[in-house]
Amino acid sequence: MKSAVVLLSGGLDSATVLAIAKDDGFDCYALSFDYGQRHRRELQAAASIANSIGVKKHVVLKLDLRQFGGSALTADIAVPKDRAVHGTAGDIPVTYVPARNTIFLSCALGWAEVLHAEAIFVGVNALDYSGYPDCRPEFIAAFENLAKVATKAGAVDHQPLHIRAPLINMTKDEIIATGLKLGVDYSQTFSCYDPPDDVHSCGRCDACQLRLAAFARLHRADPVAYV
Amino acid sequence: MKSAVVLLSGGLDSATVLAIAKDDGFDCYALSFDYGQRHRRELQAAASIANSIGVKKHVVLKLDLRQFGGSALTADIAVPKDRAVHGTAGDIPVTYVPARNTIFLSCALGWAEVLHAEAIFVGVNALDYSGYPDCRPEFIAAFENLAKVATKAGAVDHQPLHIRAPLINMTKDEIIATGLKLGVDYSQTFSCYDPPDDVHSCGRCDACQLRLAAFARLHRADPVAYV
Repeated sequence: MKSAVVLLSGGLDSATVLAIAKDDGFDCYALSFDYGQRHRRELQAAASIANSIGVKKHVVLKLDLRQFGGSALTADIAVPKDRAVHGTAGDIPVTYVPARNTIFLSCALGWAEVLHAEAIFVGVNALDYSGYPDCRPEFIAAFENLAKVATKAGAVDHQPLHIRAPLINMTKDEIIATGLKLGVDYSQTFSCYDPPDDVHSCGRCDACQLRLAAFARLHRADPVAYV
Repeated sequence: MKSAVVLLSGGLDSATVLAIAKDDGFDCYALSFDYGQRHRRELQAAASIANSIGVKKHVVLKLDLRQFGGSALTADIAVPKDRAVHGTAGDIPVTYVPARNTIFLSCALGWAEVLHAEAIFVGVNALDYSGYPDCRPEFIAAFENLAKVATKAGAVDHQPLHIRAPLINMTKDEIIATGLKLGVDYSQTFSCYDPPDDVHSCGRCDACQLRLAAFARLHRADPVAYV
């Protein structure tokens, strides 16, 4: 049985990626990070999704990126609301966490090497994204190239890992449509950057706006509760 | 003033690298990892070195790599003793920690981006090393290439970070000679993979053998206490 490490944030994208990896026949090892994000609900969402889609193991790695600061998601900087969301790399919002995907993929690489996994799945998306540099195809290609030389599996055993980013060229509508076809329960996912309480999402941050607009285009109700 | 993040393990190599970065005129930000290594003495050594050489800040990032297992340094696998140490990549010992340098450099990249640092210094060495794939020049080149596309600094502001590995082509003798010239106090460093008690080094693991042989070739006594 082929196996894969799947980065699982608890959001809509990574839940869809886990369903895709499973559908592709992989034994999945889900990896989430407790990195000092503002709220714990995304980790609870990750655990629910891992459980309902089915994984061999779910590891939550603690890594306190607040020690570096520099982002609205890990430091005391306000999350922007109601801004026009677009995907140009020239306009990187304060919610960007420096080198986050590099750090997450590196940790996934370590686990993948221990497991002799064939692939790492990551839910980056280059279209309906928030303008983060580490969500682009050239980033994924550069990381795959690094993985080839960085590990015993790649450098010595010549079994390089593949970095699979199946959502990279999909619109948010296509992502959701794919997930619905694979039976993803999006009520378990959680995307909001700045939830007002323990139950609701704000509906106004970039992450909420992107998913609300996509569900609307699909003429579906977003099953998450908004204020 | 230009600034750099310096990976500081507490060992002989990274202490020398910190002295080199300082001598090159960098404001240094030292980064160490509490990654579940078997003993805490290398973190105490890192703190002493950071203090004596002088840094702007020293961060010890917790990251429990034991959750992945797979190495003698993080799992319950015996550290090999008295083996003939050599540096061929075909013979990677069990002390190899999967993707460790990739993970450490990625975290350094995150901090470097927050600091607007110009460089990351890392003490990898391709000659007198233990055969780890992530200590080779092609690994450093691939990581520098990744850093260019992974960060806002590189992708948007076109201020790519440089990954400086000043020891990469030096022998262990040359490393120690360089450090002594720069005033490094090697009694503060700690290299042993498997110390027998709180004071001594074993003298028999790869790391001890490499440094003992190098001091001997320099006709110097290794100032660390061995059993």
